[in-house]
Amino acid sequence: MSAPPQSPPTRRVAYSGRRSLVVEAADPVAPPPGHVRIDVAYTGICGTDLHIYHGDMDSRVHPPGVLGHEMSGRVAEVGAGVEGWRPGDPVTVMPLRWCGECPACQAGHTHICHRLVFLGIDAPGAMQSSWTVPAETLVRLPYDLRLDHAALVEPVAVAVHDVRRAGLQSGERALVVGGGPIGLLIALVARRSGAVVLLAEPDSFRRSVAEGLGLTALDPRAEHFSETVDRWAGGAGAAVAFEVSGAEAGVATAIGALATRGRLVQVAIHPAPRQVDLHRFFWRELTLVGARLYDRDDFTAAVGLLGEGAIPADALISRTEPLDRAGEAFAALESGAGVMKVLIDCRASGEAR
Amino acid sequence: MSAPPQSPPTRRVAYSGRRSLVVEAADPVAPPPGHVRIDVAYTGICGTDLHIYHGDMDSRVHPPGVLGHEMSGRVAEVGAGVEGWRPGDPVTVMPLRWCGECPACQAGHTHICHRLVFLGIDAPGAMQSSWTVPAETLVRLPYDLRLDHAALVEPVAVAVHDVRRAGLQSGERALVVGGGPIGLLIALVARRSGAVVLLAEPDSFRRSVAEGLGLTALDPRAEHFSETVDRWAGGAGAAVAFEVSGAEAGVATAIGALATRGRLVQVAIHPAPRQVDLHRFFWRELTLVGARLYDRDDFTAAVGLLGEGAIPADALISRTEPLDRAGEAFAALESGAGVMKVLIDCRASGEAR
Repeated sequence: MSAPPQSPPTRRVAYSGRRSLVVEAADPVAPPPGHVRIDVAYTGICGTDLHIYHGDMDSRVHPPGVLGHEMSGRVAEVGAGVEGWRPGDPVTVMPLRWCGECPACQAGHTHICHRLVFLGIDAPGAMQSSWTVPAETLVRLPYDLRLDHAALVEPVAVAVHDVRRAGLQSGERALVVGGGPIGLLIALVARRSGAVVLLAEPDSFRRSVAEGLGLTALDPRAEHFSETVDRWAGGAGAAVAFEVSGAEAGVATAIGALATRGRLVQVAIHPAPRQVDLHRFFWRELTLVGARLYDRDDFTAAVGLLGEGAIPADALISRTEPLDRAGEAFAALESGAGVMKVLIDCRASGEAR
Repeated sequence: MSAPPQSPPTRRVAYSGRRSLVVEAADPVAPPPGHVRIDVAYTGICGTDLHIYHGDMDSRVHPPGVLGHEMSGRVAEVGAGVEGWRPGDPVTVMPLRWCGECPACQAGHTHICHRLVFLGIDAPGAMQSSWTVPAETLVRLPYDLRLDHAALVEPVAVAVHDVRRAGLQSGERALVVGGGPIGLLIALVARRSGAVVLLAEPDSFRRSVAEGLGLTALDPRAEHFSETVDRWAGGAGAAVAFEVSGAEAGVATAIGALATRGRLVQVAIHPAPRQVDLHRFFWRELTLVGARLYDRDDFTAAVGLLGEGAIPADALISRTEPLDRAGEAFAALESGAGVMKVLIDCRASGEAR
């Protein structure tokens, strides 16, 4: 299929097997009925993309799988039957497709559909200069929101969802265990919700980013960590803990910090079962709440937070690399040192922000 | 101190060290101001009493510690300043004393006070013919409720609390993992709340008791257990699972059975950390809720359920032994075979039921 005449040549980043990415030319896909083609501006690299890169998700991602699900861009072409969208509209995509028929969908929890298709994992993603998606996945962006900042909408929506799952009330104390991009965003959204937030993170660079945002960050391996948390929580313990580390030690830190009837929100992916102190759950009548992805309300709220400038996007975006340098961007993120969020600039030409 | 003239000589069962009980004479304690002396009728033996008997709770129970916290009786003597109670009133006791000052109490969760004193563990219990307790711990019984049946109020209150912690709705499917006395009572209370209940229990005697009560009971070790549970839950999974087994395998059974957004109520005591599939909590957005003891509303509801005949007490009480045979009663319960609830008849004389 040849590209439509209005589109410049486009490129994409595809997973080509364990620890291997290929940047290649790709013809834009003309939008079928009900679809929209987007000129992608920026696509962030997520921890999940790193898992794919490491070959850990080969059962779901087959070469050449186009990565990416944290993005921003502009509508380029509108397929037949699509209403309400025009070329040039700034958009992001909620990268979920659900069946509508499984028990989860029937119960109204479409975002955790039993047959969920996640764009960027189970279907081609946004790490390409041209991306064609179903129109229902589009989420409108304000015209005055910078498109690099808007690439953070998806992870901010994760944080909004996690804070909502916590049932966080203003004035409550919340401990966030793990200070990567999602942990920091949870801390920021929780603070914005009126919570008193403490971050536990062993990496000093991540702590310094958090402190630059006015957050209090502690090293959970420090000698008097527990006593410090206890003092911070006035001897009562935290009302809420977010487990964003994915480590068994992080689970123990979160549980140990909780007050009677405290809520632990399980955000991180734990690939293996973990030793959990169930007696503590019994003794203090704790609650553990699993939190996965987001729904459209979370996405809309995330757009609002970024639009209001409530999320310090510049401080979270460590670097932006052109699409041709995706390999280097993945390597930088993998090294972990001194890097928070990395964006890929997917623009085919030098479009202004 | 000599016994008041109106009281007959009384006896008690005391823990006298690992695997050792002593039945001995004990003078009734005249009620101080604010207290009431009860002529105890029946005291049930709880799993916790067995733990004490095994020496597992020596840090809290010091010889000669009087066991027992599931009881019924009649007010015998009323101390100064106590209003509303008269000799002969049928009563049970909610065996909790809280400080009123700790963070849990300040938050309104007095039943899980950080300095909770549990009568029968941290203070003398009900396995004696005469028991003197603070008047605030009394719970009134209907005159027409048999006192042997009323000895089940405390475990029924546990079940009421657990079902409330689950937020169980009429029509929901609930899996109860573990078919001892508490598991059976949870199943009965859940069914009474309109839930569709399934019990998982490896012991055939316990399953037969459950089936005698009209419950469906399955052996979780059976070959097609998971498929059967799945069919029972219409392919969607259970809305609620109660973990009452205390075993790591029981935790896995409960988690594996839950629907998207399902709630796992952690009832049993797990003395050691357990391997828990946290990924499943994330993936299906499950909730785990710790449940411990009860509050006064739960106790009142339990009295109501027994008063209405909603709990088939006769089917749950396997045997009743006189106080002098407490050792044999503990041994029978310990053997586990063919025994559900065992009561100790604590009456000093042959008082009618």
